[in-house]
Amino acid sequence: MDDLLNRLTTLLGPAGLLTAPSDIAPFCTDWRGLMHGAARAILRPASTDQVAQCVALCAEHGAKMVPQGGNTSMVAGATPSADGSAFILTLSRLNQVRAIDTTDLTMTIEAGVTLQAAQIAADDAGALLPLSISAEGSAQIGGVLATNAGGNNTLRYGNARDLVLGLEVVLADGRIWHGLRSLRKDNTGYCLRQLFVGSEGTLGIITAAVLKLSPRPRDRQAAFCAVPSVDAALALFARFRAEDASALQAFEYIAAPTLDLVVKHIPGITPPTSRAPHYVLIDLATTNKHGNLRAMLEDTLATALNDGLITDAALADSAAHRAAFWKLRENCAEGQKQEGASVKNDVSVPVSTIPTLLAQAETALQHLIPGCRMVAFGHIGDGNIHLNVQQPANITAGEFLSQAHDIMDCVNAIVQSLHGSFSAEHGIGKLKPYLMTNWRGGPELDMMHAIKSALDPACTLNPGTLLPPRP
Amino acid sequence: MDDLLNRLTTLLGPAGLLTAPSDIAPFCTDWRGLMHGAARAILRPASTDQVAQCVALCAEHGAKMVPQGGNTSMVAGATPSADGSAFILTLSRLNQVRAIDTTDLTMTIEAGVTLQAAQIAADDAGALLPLSISAEGSAQIGGVLATNAGGNNTLRYGNARDLVLGLEVVLADGRIWHGLRSLRKDNTGYCLRQLFVGSEGTLGIITAAVLKLSPRPRDRQAAFCAVPSVDAALALFARFRAEDASALQAFEYIAAPTLDLVVKHIPGITPPTSRAPHYVLIDLATTNKHGNLRAMLEDTLATALNDGLITDAALADSAAHRAAFWKLRENCAEGQKQEGASVKNDVSVPVSTIPTLLAQAETALQHLIPGCRMVAFGHIGDGNIHLNVQQPANITAGEFLSQAHDIMDCVNAIVQSLHGSFSAEHGIGKLKPYLMTNWRGGPELDMMHAIKSALDPACTLNPGTLLPPRP
Repeated sequence: MDDLLNRLTTLLGPAGLLTAPSDIAPFCTDWRGLMHGAARAILRPASTDQVAQCVALCAEHGAKMVPQGGNTSMVAGATPSADGSAFILTLSRLNQVRAIDTTDLTMTIEAGVTLQAAQIAADDAGALLPLSISAEGSAQIGGVLATNAGGNNTLRYGNARDLVLGLEVVLADGRIWHGLRSLRKDNTGYCLRQLFVGSEGTLGIITAAVLKLSPRPRDRQAAFCAVPSVDAALALFARFRAEDASALQAFEYIAAPTLDLVVKHIPGITPPTSRAPHYVLIDLATTNKHGNLRAMLEDTLATALNDGLITDAALADSAAHRAAFWKLRENCAEGQKQEGASVKNDVSVPVSTIPTLLAQAETALQHLIPGCRMVAFGHIGDGNIHLNVQQPANITAGEFLSQAHDIMDCVNAIVQSLHGSFSAEHGIGKLKPYLMTNWRGGPELDMMHAIKSALDPACTLNPGTLLPPRP
Repeated sequence: MDDLLNRLTTLLGPAGLLTAPSDIAPFCTDWRGLMHGAARAILRPASTDQVAQCVALCAEHGAKMVPQGGNTSMVAGATPSADGSAFILTLSRLNQVRAIDTTDLTMTIEAGVTLQAAQIAADDAGALLPLSISAEGSAQIGGVLATNAGGNNTLRYGNARDLVLGLEVVLADGRIWHGLRSLRKDNTGYCLRQLFVGSEGTLGIITAAVLKLSPRPRDRQAAFCAVPSVDAALALFARFRAEDASALQAFEYIAAPTLDLVVKHIPGITPPTSRAPHYVLIDLATTNKHGNLRAMLEDTLATALNDGLITDAALADSAAHRAAFWKLRENCAEGQKQEGASVKNDVSVPVSTIPTLLAQAETALQHLIPGCRMVAFGHIGDGNIHLNVQQPANITAGEFLSQAHDIMDCVNAIVQSLHGSFSAEHGIGKLKPYLMTNWRGGPELDMMHAIKSALDPACTLNPGTLLPPRP
């Protein structure tokens, strides 16, 4: 124990290793404040080589390691267990943009750069890093990739995994895989990078990546629409997709109870349209200066109004106007938070079954907890709905939250019957491994365990995360 | 041996198992005629369950299996070894399109459907399956996915792996992984589907897949341009990408010696433009009927002409005209074949280094074999160049081909110095595993071996393919 700490201290220097309890504490609680772990020390390597040496030393001593980026996990994916046996290894000092190539449209970037800093660096170079999530100011590239982050623009650009061309990874034995390729086509063996993306730090520690960039849009248009039904919202989505799928950056859904809470609690937000049971926010962008997005938007909405797919629409007349639409959308969670207790579900289903999901969930939840409010919003085009449930007025928050698992089970049962997922973008972390056996059990979970054993045989990397205990 | 054959015969029936040498022979030679293997029998299961039962029986007996689709591999990926110890399992009877959902924009399809039949089925449903390769009339979906096929439209739609949402796979022990999900967002554990895609049948046998479809384009435009230099071709590519990356379906490069051979040998093909050292074919498409692709194409080319990036251009005035451009491009390999012996290199490099690749290769090849002709063409936007080398007039085909490995080594050395790949889209198969140790050795190859051992511990699936022997 002491030998290992001494060797790590020699390796990293005083700035590279934190052992005071007050220094360690902030790293040991997850962003949502749901789990409180403990750690032997915080390792702060300053280079890939130092990460590799830390991992090699820990492997030699059989010590456990929890890699941590911005610590913004929604499922406590970077929180150590409470027994204090693990080291936390933070990537935050690996914070260089190593290269941006505007011909290749690629960015080579270290794990500790925040997503926002990466976006700014791409923009400064005249390009677009199209990944965008709420936590982008704190979330770091390493964690973003290790959890395959999703977000607002996946409809057009895919999830984090779709942007990764190459990786540099420190393996469980401390060796470095130098896989920082920037090739668009390369069929030379198993696609290891896609195995590390989304593996939540359980197979290796991502230290750098090559990401695809995109050209910056020249024209943007947005509309906020009042919609009579979820079916109509879905039909409208299909029409825009047929008109110009490439221009469709986001197609966001907001249920009326959700909008009501935002308007009630967030200062300065007014409903953009007349009242309706459902709303959608449509965001279009193109690099084509001849693209006539505005004409397409107006034509498509005029026809939709005529056909009864929408009852009203507001078109953004400026960037500020578009930003106001997005402010409403981005405050859905906050508006709900200020109303009282809620239970969150980050689910996805095949896009065509979203109306069924919402209708069945409404019925089942009212049956389970009469008077509760379903506060739904999310990404229709991805089939990803944040299907949150708000406490009824007639019971206390405590009474309501005591039924949290019943509520999640109720929603998940419907999602499962529709062949959906219980975790669309947040991952498994330490909160949800218990669900894996039911949802991904049998050959699939056996393969995951076999791969874990193959790449981290001593099980020292982020133990207790993603996988349930082996049966 | 007989016991296994008897049980397989009972399982599959007379139509499901071929043992006559004349029936077996066509399956045992690869498409290019480079390898001649042997097999105990051809297994022709008619369902996923039958595939699973075949694999379970063979696993029980330790028998080797070579899965085979359309047998169009360029690297003998589905050819058994000559010792005759393996069974070939053909997926061709699993040939149903199980479902197409035009709201989800997904297609659920069995492994034995040809890519062309899949394209037609998508088109009949009003959608686009955007994958397109030369062998699409014979290549089957299972093989297309197992080899991560690339092709002409990867610039816009990615490689085969980018189109896969879900898989059904028979594992090495005969169990079935029912992973046919159609979710756009799903973060529930390791991304196994991307491990099977590109694994060339060495980790499991893909029996069905859920593929992403796209909306059908409403407008298409194409141009054929005469270009003074490779740098100019690359600069022109960057301009079109900045103008409308979403509309850029293909940006193909053809060197003058390549075009000359096509015009010389293929009847009915005339050069679309005045003479130049290089040519590019630009193919644009959009679903946006307000998209004004023609205006964008004309504007961009007018500016390029003014700036000296092109010296001439022909714009397609009809679908037939566009097809004529593509006929020229698609006959590059055929024109070359009719000229005499050649050595093929399917390489990729970072897009920005294509001019360096072509310049260095020309010099090095002339030094190696004075008078040889570099017959280059390919996909500039993907960095994927088919850098083929034609025999000089003053030596025989045999003399020339005796230097085939020197030629490949010469090209590959340059590609490696540019951080490229020796196999951009064709894969490894049985022809190229020997290159893996040099190019992907160390931790990367160790991980591949570990994964192979984890998922196919008895090494019965497509032995000798993709991986070199373990050291």
